[in-house]
Amino acid sequence: MTPGLMQPVPLQTSAILRYAATAHPRREIVSRQIDAPLWRYDYAALERRAARVANLLATLGVSPGERVSSLGWNTHRHLELFYGVSGAGVVLHTANPRLFDEQVAYTINHAESAVLFFEKNLAALVERIAPRLTTVKTFIVLSDEVPHEAGALDVLSYERLIAAESDGFDWPSFDENAGAFLCYTSGTTGDPKGVLYSHRAIVLHAMGAGLNSAFGFTAFDVVMPCPSLYHATAWGLPFVAPLCGAKLVLPGDKMDGASLHELIEGEGVTFTGGVPTIWTMYLAYLEQTGQATRTLKRVMIGGSAVPRAMAETFKRKYGVDVLQIWGMTETCPLGVIASPTPALAERGEEAMQEVIWTRQGRLQFGVELRTVDDDGADTPRDGETPGALKVRGPWTVQRYYRQPADAVDAEGWFDTGDIATLDADGFMRITDRAKDVIKSGGEWISSIDLENVAVGCPGVKIAAVIGVPHPKWEERPLLVIEPHQGEVVSAAAVLDYLAPRIAKWWMPEEVVFAEVPLTATGKIDKKALRQVVTQASGKTPG
Amino acid sequence: MTPGLMQPVPLQTSAILRYAATAHPRREIVSRQIDAPLWRYDYAALERRAARVANLLATLGVSPGERVSSLGWNTHRHLELFYGVSGAGVVLHTANPRLFDEQVAYTINHAESAVLFFEKNLAALVERIAPRLTTVKTFIVLSDEVPHEAGALDVLSYERLIAAESDGFDWPSFDENAGAFLCYTSGTTGDPKGVLYSHRAIVLHAMGAGLNSAFGFTAFDVVMPCPSLYHATAWGLPFVAPLCGAKLVLPGDKMDGASLHELIEGEGVTFTGGVPTIWTMYLAYLEQTGQATRTLKRVMIGGSAVPRAMAETFKRKYGVDVLQIWGMTETCPLGVIASPTPALAERGEEAMQEVIWTRQGRLQFGVELRTVDDDGADTPRDGETPGALKVRGPWTVQRYYRQPADAVDAEGWFDTGDIATLDADGFMRITDRAKDVIKSGGEWISSIDLENVAVGCPGVKIAAVIGVPHPKWEERPLLVIEPHQGEVVSAAAVLDYLAPRIAKWWMPEEVVFAEVPLTATGKIDKKALRQVVTQASGKTPG
Repeated sequence: MTPGLMQPVPLQTSAILRYAATAHPRREIVSRQIDAPLWRYDYAALERRAARVANLLATLGVSPGERVSSLGWNTHRHLELFYGVSGAGVVLHTANPRLFDEQVAYTINHAESAVLFFEKNLAALVERIAPRLTTVKTFIVLSDEVPHEAGALDVLSYERLIAAESDGFDWPSFDENAGAFLCYTSGTTGDPKGVLYSHRAIVLHAMGAGLNSAFGFTAFDVVMPCPSLYHATAWGLPFVAPLCGAKLVLPGDKMDGASLHELIEGEGVTFTGGVPTIWTMYLAYLEQTGQATRTLKRVMIGGSAVPRAMAETFKRKYGVDVLQIWGMTETCPLGVIASPTPALAERGEEAMQEVIWTRQGRLQFGVELRTVDDDGADTPRDGETPGALKVRGPWTVQRYYRQPADAVDAEGWFDTGDIATLDADGFMRITDRAKDVIKSGGEWISSIDLENVAVGCPGVKIAAVIGVPHPKWEERPLLVIEPHQGEVVSAAAVLDYLAPRIAKWWMPEEVVFAEVPLTATGKIDKKALRQVVTQASGKTPG
Repeated sequence: MTPGLMQPVPLQTSAILRYAATAHPRREIVSRQIDAPLWRYDYAALERRAARVANLLATLGVSPGERVSSLGWNTHRHLELFYGVSGAGVVLHTANPRLFDEQVAYTINHAESAVLFFEKNLAALVERIAPRLTTVKTFIVLSDEVPHEAGALDVLSYERLIAAESDGFDWPSFDENAGAFLCYTSGTTGDPKGVLYSHRAIVLHAMGAGLNSAFGFTAFDVVMPCPSLYHATAWGLPFVAPLCGAKLVLPGDKMDGASLHELIEGEGVTFTGGVPTIWTMYLAYLEQTGQATRTLKRVMIGGSAVPRAMAETFKRKYGVDVLQIWGMTETCPLGVIASPTPALAERGEEAMQEVIWTRQGRLQFGVELRTVDDDGADTPRDGETPGALKVRGPWTVQRYYRQPADAVDAEGWFDTGDIATLDADGFMRITDRAKDVIKSGGEWISSIDLENVAVGCPGVKIAAVIGVPHPKWEERPLLVIEPHQGEVVSAAAVLDYLAPRIAKWWMPEEVVFAEVPLTATGKIDKKALRQVVTQASGKTPG
C-alpha cells in the first residue's frame, strides 16, 4: 500500500475537552449536588478543573496506563474525573454502586485501582467494602469535606486536594488505542466482565453518535444524561454533548419525576435519555401534577424495550419524540437508534411511528450488524426471520479485560447474545435473549414478544415467559404473571386475552402467578425466575 | 499505557459505501450526463457498479497502493471511481482538467498512474497531453462509446469494460492510513503539489463534516455538490451525503444558472455548495427569470470570501442560509464553517448574521487553529490581531506527495500561508494571504479587506490590491480596478468612496485601471497582476 500523508494526530478524550473549552468556552454545565444548591460552570472551567485532577494523579503517583476507580453519580465532579483521569492517560474504572458489595469490590480489585473516588452519600458502601479492597491505597470523597460515616478510613477531600493543584495541564498526546474507561457488565451469571474502552473508540463513538442519524445535537441543545455515568459512560452523552457544544445538565442521583421535571423546565432541557423505569416515573409525575414540558423535544430510551404506551404518551400528549436505542456495555454503547427516513415517511406518519416504536432502532455508521442461524449462515433481512445478533465495528469489544482470549469469532464479529430480526429499512428488532428463546417443535418462540402482549392484559403488572421442557415439542412457554397490587387476575382471563393476539402454537403451556424477580438494572431476572418456578412447582425449566 | 480492547476495525471509504448500500439502499443518486438524459440509481446500485470498477482494476493488473488518474466531472461514473478505486486499495488521482496542459500531464506523471479515466468531452485534452504521459498504459473513456476525437489513441470504453466484470466484490480490510485520494494543489508558483489523503482522513473528515456544527445532513437532505470532484473530493460531499443517507444530485459539468435551477427544483435539492462565481450566476439567473427556489435551504460557499451582498440576497430574498466555509486541499478541505451558536443568537438575528457573514467560519472538532506573529508567539484571540494561520488535525496534510520533508513545524502545525484573526466566539477571519499582506510602517494592511470595500464602489467589477515599495513606509497599497463592462469609473470617485470607509493610512497610494488576471479557480492571480502592473507602469511591486 502507499501510505497516506496526513497528520498522525491521535483521537483522544482530551481533544473533545479542549475543543469544547476553545469553541464553546461559555456554554454551561449544571450539576445537581448532594445536599447543596445546583452547581454551575462552563466548558472552559471544566477544562481547568479537569487539569487539576490530572495534576493530582501525578501528585498521588498514579502513572499513565494505571487504573483508578470511581463510585460516582451524574455530577460535575464525576465528569471532571472522566476528562481529568482519561486525559492524563490513566484509565477510569467507573464502578457500579448498585451492584452487590462483593461485585463492587471484585471489579475494583480486578481493575487493580490504587485510588477510589466516591460520592459522600456512598461512604457507607465504601466502608463496608474497604476491608476487601486489595489494591486501593487512597480514598477520596467527591466533596469539600470528609464524611463522618467513613471515619474508620483515611479519607481525603477531593476539593481540598485539587485546590492545591495547578489548573494548567499540558494534555499529553499518546496512542489512541490506549485504554480510557473500564466498565464492567452486570451480567447475572458469573463475575462481572470488564470492557476497556480505548480513546479511539470513545472519540469515534462520540462523532458517530453526534450525527443526525443518532443523537444529532446542535449547539442549541440542552442535554441531560439520566443513564448513569457508570453505565457505558452514560451512553456517551458526556462526550457527544461537548463535541456539539450542547449545554450539559447533570441530575446527580435524583431521578424521581419531580427532580427531573425541575431540571428539565428550569434549565431548558431539550434532550434527555435513560431506562424506561425513569420515564414511567416522570410521566406519572406529569400526570399527577397536571403539568407539561415546555422545552423537552426528544427522549432517548434504552436498556430495555420501550413500552408502546410510553412512546405514544410522550408523543401525543406532550409532543416529545421518543428515540429507541439499543446497545450494550460491549458497544460503547451505541448499536442502533431509531430515526426517521424518507422511505419510512412516504408511508405516512402513523406507519412510520409504528416502525419506530416497535423496533430497537436503525443501522448506524460504525456499527455493522448481522443475524445468523444455528449454522452460522446469514438469515434474510426480511424483518421476520430471527437470528443470533452479531456486531462489528471500531467501538465494539474485541476482548474482555484480563481475559486470555478474544470475545469475537474468526471474522471479528461479537455475539451479542440477543436474538433479533433485521429488515430492508435497516431496522433491527430484538426478539429475545439467546438463552431465553423457546425452541418449540423446531421453531423459535420469542419470550419478549409473548411478554409484550401479555403485559397488556388488564391487571397485569409484569409478564415473564420461560421455557419448560416438553416431551413432544422439546420446549413450551410458561407464563409467569405478577398482577398489579390489589388486582385479581385469572389464568383463564390471561389465556382469553392472548388467544386472538398471538399464533396458536405460541399459547403458553401454563400460566402461574408469582412476584417476578428483577436484576439490579430493573430487567426480569430469568435465572432467578427459573429457580422460583422450579421450587414452587417442581418443574424443571429449560 | 494499558491498550484498550476494542475491535481494530479500520476506517475505510468502503465502510461508507457499504453503510449507505445497507442502511439507505433505495436512496437516490441523480447525475447529469454529457449529451444524455439524467442518470438515476441508488446507493445499492452504486455499490454494485463500484464493485465492477474494483474488479476491473484487478483485470487491468492494477495492484493496491498503485495510482490511477481521472479527468472527470461531477458525474455518477466519477463517483463510482471514488468508491471502486479507493475501496480496492488503489489510489485515485483526481486530475484537474482546468489546469494548463503541461500541469495536467505533470500531475499524472508525478502520480505514476497506469490508467487514465476521462469524460468523453475531455478527449481532446487527453489527446493533446497523451504524448507527454510517461506512465499511462490504459486510456478509458467514461462512456459507453469510444469518442472519435481520441481516434489516435487506443481508448477503451468504461461501460463495455465494467459490463464484463462481476458486480460482487469483497471489499478488503487494510491499514486505514493507506492512501485513498491524491489531489494536487493548483498553486500559482512552481509545480502543483500532491496531497495524499488517507482512508482514515477521508472517513474522519466525513464524520466531522456530518456533525451539525458543519454540514449536518439528515436522511431527508438532498445534496448537490457543485465544487468539482477533483477539488479536494468536492469538499467531502460524496462521502458525507451517503454517510448521512442523503440523496445525491451530481450536476455534471453544467454549472450555469439555468442548469442548476432545473436540478435544484426538479430534484428537491436542499443543500448545495461551491465557489462564489457559480452562485453569482445562479442569483443572476433567478433575478432575470423572476424565479425563486422552493426547496433549497442552505448554500455552502467557499474557495474565496463570500460577498456580503450575495449572502444577504440569498437570505432575505430567497430564504436560503449561506454557510461560509474555509479550507484548503491540504485540509481535506474542512477547516472552519459558519454555524450559529446560542452565544451569538443572544445578540439578536442582525448581529448574529453580521458575524456569520463576515467571518470564514467557526472552529470544528478535528481542526485545531492558531495564529502566530513573526516570532511564532500566539496572537490574542480578540478578533482584531492578525497572525499567520496554522492548522493541525487528523485530516490535515503532514507531507506533500513524494517530498523528502514534512510540511509541518516541530509541533506538528501546518502553515496555511493565510493571515487571519481568531475571536472569543471561535470564529476565524482571513485577512490576507501571507505573501499578499502589505507591511506599511510596521503595521499590516489587509489586501483582502481593502478589496472587499473597494468592490462596493459603483461600477467596480473587480478590485485587486498589491503592495508597492515605498521609501518611507516600506510598502504601500496599489489598487487595481476592473470596471463592469460599459461602466466608467474614475480614480477620484474610488478614493472618495473609500475615504469614509477605511482607516486613513490604508488609503491606496495609487488607483490604476486594468483587466485583473484570474487563476484557473477564479481567484485573483496576484502574481500575474504584479507582472501586469510592472509592465504597464514601470513600478516594482513588492
